[in-house]
Amino acid sequence: MCNFLKSQLVHLFLVISFFRLVAQPAESVKEPVSKDNPKWVIVIHGGAGGPVKGSLSASQEEAYLNMLSQALESGSAILRSGGTSLEAVTAAVCFMEDCPLFNAGKGAVLDEEGKAELDAAVMDGRTLKAGAVGGVRTVKNPVLAAVAVMEKTKHVMLAGPGADRFAREQGLKIVPASYFIVTDRYEKWKQTKPGADAVHGTVGAVALDQSGNLAAATSTGGMSRKMVGRLGDTPIIGAGTYANNKTCAVSCTGHGEFFIRNVVAYDLSALMEYKGLPLAEAAEYIVNDKLKSQKADGGLIAVDKEGNIAMPFNSNAMFRGYKTSDDRSLVAIFK
Amino acid sequence: MCNFLKSQLVHLFLVISFFRLVAQPAESVKEPVSKDNPKWVIVIHGGAGGPVKGSLSASQEEAYLNMLSQALESGSAILRSGGTSLEAVTAAVCFMEDCPLFNAGKGAVLDEEGKAELDAAVMDGRTLKAGAVGGVRTVKNPVLAAVAVMEKTKHVMLAGPGADRFAREQGLKIVPASYFIVTDRYEKWKQTKPGADAVHGTVGAVALDQSGNLAAATSTGGMSRKMVGRLGDTPIIGAGTYANNKTCAVSCTGHGEFFIRNVVAYDLSALMEYKGLPLAEAAEYIVNDKLKSQKADGGLIAVDKEGNIAMPFNSNAMFRGYKTSDDRSLVAIFK
Repeated sequence: MCNFLKSQLVHLFLVISFFRLVAQPAESVKEPVSKDNPKWVIVIHGGAGGPVKGSLSASQEEAYLNMLSQALESGSAILRSGGTSLEAVTAAVCFMEDCPLFNAGKGAVLDEEGKAELDAAVMDGRTLKAGAVGGVRTVKNPVLAAVAVMEKTKHVMLAGPGADRFAREQGLKIVPASYFIVTDRYEKWKQTKPGADAVHGTVGAVALDQSGNLAAATSTGGMSRKMVGRLGDTPIIGAGTYANNKTCAVSCTGHGEFFIRNVVAYDLSALMEYKGLPLAEAAEYIVNDKLKSQKADGGLIAVDKEGNIAMPFNSNAMFRGYKTSDDRSLVAIFK
Repeated sequence: MCNFLKSQLVHLFLVISFFRLVAQPAESVKEPVSKDNPKWVIVIHGGAGGPVKGSLSASQEEAYLNMLSQALESGSAILRSGGTSLEAVTAAVCFMEDCPLFNAGKGAVLDEEGKAELDAAVMDGRTLKAGAVGGVRTVKNPVLAAVAVMEKTKHVMLAGPGADRFAREQGLKIVPASYFIVTDRYEKWKQTKPGADAVHGTVGAVALDQSGNLAAATSTGGMSRKMVGRLGDTPIIGAGTYANNKTCAVSCTGHGEFFIRNVVAYDLSALMEYKGLPLAEAAEYIVNDKLKSQKADGGLIAVDKEGNIAMPFNSNAMFRGYKTSDDRSLVAIFK
């Protein structure tokens, strides 16, 4: 997982001064201003991984935290003005797809052939409608393609060249394959050998809006040096992404194969619905008991219908943050 | 769903005399010979759909029932001689993939371009390992490609051209695209218009072996006139396919998009594990309450660790059957 850190450091310095100019400083955790449930909540992640605390310089940490703050604000602005949770999670994920720091959209890790193959999913907790794309290579924002699958087709999931074609037909922004590849990511890819420890990471967002509706969105470049055509948990409804107004909205990040086998996102919902566990307890059990016992590293973010937040992870770090209508907020990297 | 029936009738008559020659007559339901749990169980389905009772002639019904009996026997022979549940479900699904009567492998329905795109998955309840392929076009037995993904890669799911390439590299039998297309299926495809009611169907098997291990396998050609790249529930672990020694093994068939949104296969396991429901009650609730209320047609087959069997469906028919070590067996089509 150290590879994940190293591969990001080179271009981090190139973009860091830009972030300093435009970003707000990270906000610290505050106590709730009231005992009432918040009117809206957004929670995001930018991947769980291995950078050990202290291995990032202060300015590097600041750059990550600033990007998380901006992604949060892009979703919060929508929720504040009465927009839907689906619009908010889509906006936050789009922002992180466009940012080369995260393994989604621009800046994605590369597969065994040195190409970016991108996966994304969204789910609307109000309708249980969902959309997903797997292995797209030309769509600038895969999460928008997932939304289009949900809204414009009778299907839930499109994968491979058919998904790229659909996105083009829908008028989504198409980019050359080179758009996704940031230089140092490619240099790093050339240096690693097939079979080397896989780098992974994901971005995601979950939200509760002022109408009480939940939504989740997730996007990823997958696992470094993955086989062509490999799909991880991100585009699998129930594994990496799930939302249901009855329970919670969930977005996962980590070693995708384990998240598929454990049906992690739906498992959280099922523990709440069928076993009556509170969100935090269910999330903690899945990440720090069930997954940990299988040596499956990663974490998840979740929000329930009352606006409770959970962000457990069993890796060294998870890039994460939240913001609520009652003025609580956090952006953080380490435990 | 009547289309499903019609499209099969033409070549049914062509193969019917062959089946009569080689098949054993369908066995009827018998009472258990002992109160002990059976040593092994296999349950299969050949798709849920719409043929109304009485719309099949006696000889047509006999042909279907004979094929189901043979598929059951191909799995039972393995379980009887001490083979694993994984081997048994794979053999039964291979048999149905090779049979042109079912929508899987040879005889699959065709996508919007008139081509077969095939999905399959397997899961081993002992290890929670799983494998799946989506949208393959050249692998004679997609379920064998799913097994290879599980056993030979660090991934769970491969989709599109990468999955075909992997299967070829693994030495699996590769066939021309024309292999999958049976003549009347193609004629039927030419007559239907884009947007017409979709025909779907699936084959699947679940089993308990003499060592007490559960496994599930599912395979399909998907939905007629589906968009290129569409994946249904079949290759999605937790949606169409799931197995866990703690609870049950499940294979689903029906309107795949609903099965994805409802994470049906894992939902059955979760209702047993978290709510303590018996297999039959949990399966009945999902199929005839939850899915039915969403107008989601289909069914599932399942076996639990004690060898209990459930086969609920909310459509007019589900091609199905089971066989156990204590000499119970059934093959059936209608309610």
